[in-house]
Amino acid sequence: MSEEISNNALAPVGVFDSGVGGLTVAREIMRQLPNEKIVYFGDTARVPYGSKSKDTILRYSRQIVRFLKTKNVKAIVVACNTASALALEEIRDEIDMPIIGVVKPGAKVAVEKTINKRIGVIATEATINSHIYTDYIKNRDNDITVFSKACPLFVPLVEEMWLKDSVTEEVAGRYLENLKEEHIDTLVLGCTHYPLLRNMIGNIMGESVTLVNPAYETAVSLGELLVKNNLSAGNVYSYSGEMYDFYVSDAAEKFKRFANSILPFRIENISQINIEEY
Amino acid sequence: MSEEISNNALAPVGVFDSGVGGLTVAREIMRQLPNEKIVYFGDTARVPYGSKSKDTILRYSRQIVRFLKTKNVKAIVVACNTASALALEEIRDEIDMPIIGVVKPGAKVAVEKTINKRIGVIATEATINSHIYTDYIKNRDNDITVFSKACPLFVPLVEEMWLKDSVTEEVAGRYLENLKEEHIDTLVLGCTHYPLLRNMIGNIMGESVTLVNPAYETAVSLGELLVKNNLSAGNVYSYSGEMYDFYVSDAAEKFKRFANSILPFRIENISQINIEEY
Repeated sequence: MSEEISNNALAPVGVFDSGVGGLTVAREIMRQLPNEKIVYFGDTARVPYGSKSKDTILRYSRQIVRFLKTKNVKAIVVACNTASALALEEIRDEIDMPIIGVVKPGAKVAVEKTINKRIGVIATEATINSHIYTDYIKNRDNDITVFSKACPLFVPLVEEMWLKDSVTEEVAGRYLENLKEEHIDTLVLGCTHYPLLRNMIGNIMGESVTLVNPAYETAVSLGELLVKNNLSAGNVYSYSGEMYDFYVSDAAEKFKRFANSILPFRIENISQINIEEY
Repeated sequence: MSEEISNNALAPVGVFDSGVGGLTVAREIMRQLPNEKIVYFGDTARVPYGSKSKDTILRYSRQIVRFLKTKNVKAIVVACNTASALALEEIRDEIDMPIIGVVKPGAKVAVEKTINKRIGVIATEATINSHIYTDYIKNRDNDITVFSKACPLFVPLVEEMWLKDSVTEEVAGRYLENLKEEHIDTLVLGCTHYPLLRNMIGNIMGESVTLVNPAYETAVSLGELLVKNNLSAGNVYSYSGEMYDFYVSDAAEKFKRFANSILPFRIENISQINIEEY
């Protein structure tokens, strides 16, 4: 294997989300691809995306891509299921660098994991209404039946940090009731906030149901994509300065508290920008 | 009393909110001032405001004021507690027309209603952190003690329309527990979504607690303000066309469903605009 690395390979990967949820994806990239620099953007001034329309999400995503380009990123990860569902295909045609979302990797794993060919998907209203998980899954295996459920209260409950709470448990029980009755054996956590409720969701669904967190597979796909495009920082490169830059569109302090509860290290420097100017 | 009406008096009143909540204020204006035309704007593309920073809310509010000016409004009602708390004072200095918010009217009523001089205020995180209700109330009567509580899950629960629901009841019970123990006799519903939970909140707090909905007093204040500025459409004027115009920054359909569950008539025409252009 060649050790040759293009200049561009030293550039950072851009990762964006509507807010803090995408940090669960960034964390997985840091773990699997420790030599990759990351520029993270969280659109905290306009969060949440999950209840908004395709036009709006597409406009927001385009602005963010323009911002990330000013940071000279070499590739972009749409670490938000809603933006992956509603904006990724259009944006892919508009830019000249590799870009991936979290939906396709999540759907791929779910298809690999299911045995009884009954898959559940939980996500935001916008993601569920886009039918994108169902389309991707059935495109890979048309014999699979997909059961979808929007869980709009999960995001505010996670942002409140009511992670092990009787209220959250009752809400989860209600949202998941029908999926349980459908005897699915695989459940996609189709929103980057949901892995923070993983234990509770796992307890409700029972041991026979495999939970799929697209973050892991997204990081795997990113690694493959970078190698394929000769953009991987590889394992010979060692960078001594700051590896990770964080940008938000509102209230860096609040983001920092949340980030420091998710990431395996403390972050101090978060910059606030006006995303509407991009 | 003179029946003379200035030209400007025939212009509409601009009313804005982060989303649908301000419709509870618009409804009260329609009821009390039936001859006033209204241009309503709901910032559904960037809702909610209650968890965002002062800088962001101020920037959003300025854009909305610029938009409302293009509709030739004669006065503006900030029908959002968060924007009233964080942006009203600055904006008042920047524009040349009457503008009122919902906080001052709500605080005024609470001071008038309390007997034991113990007032509770529930609102979004941003409104509570601004201390504006406490400041206004103590400014009127320094002997009053104010007990505040942010209730961040109320807005998503209302938007889910879980208005009479055991989950909402448990959340409300938890948020209101401390206020009950403080033996308040008056509780300000300091967010325009909260009046939709009025019955539940009333049941939890008990009959000895008076609930204050700033919407009513805001409409009273608006009426007085218009008269004082010789801008009232008065009671001689009868307009035959459309009285109410509705604008949103995202997904008019969803707004319409919600609006039609709040307003005493059906609305059909809602226009979507790109608020970032203002």
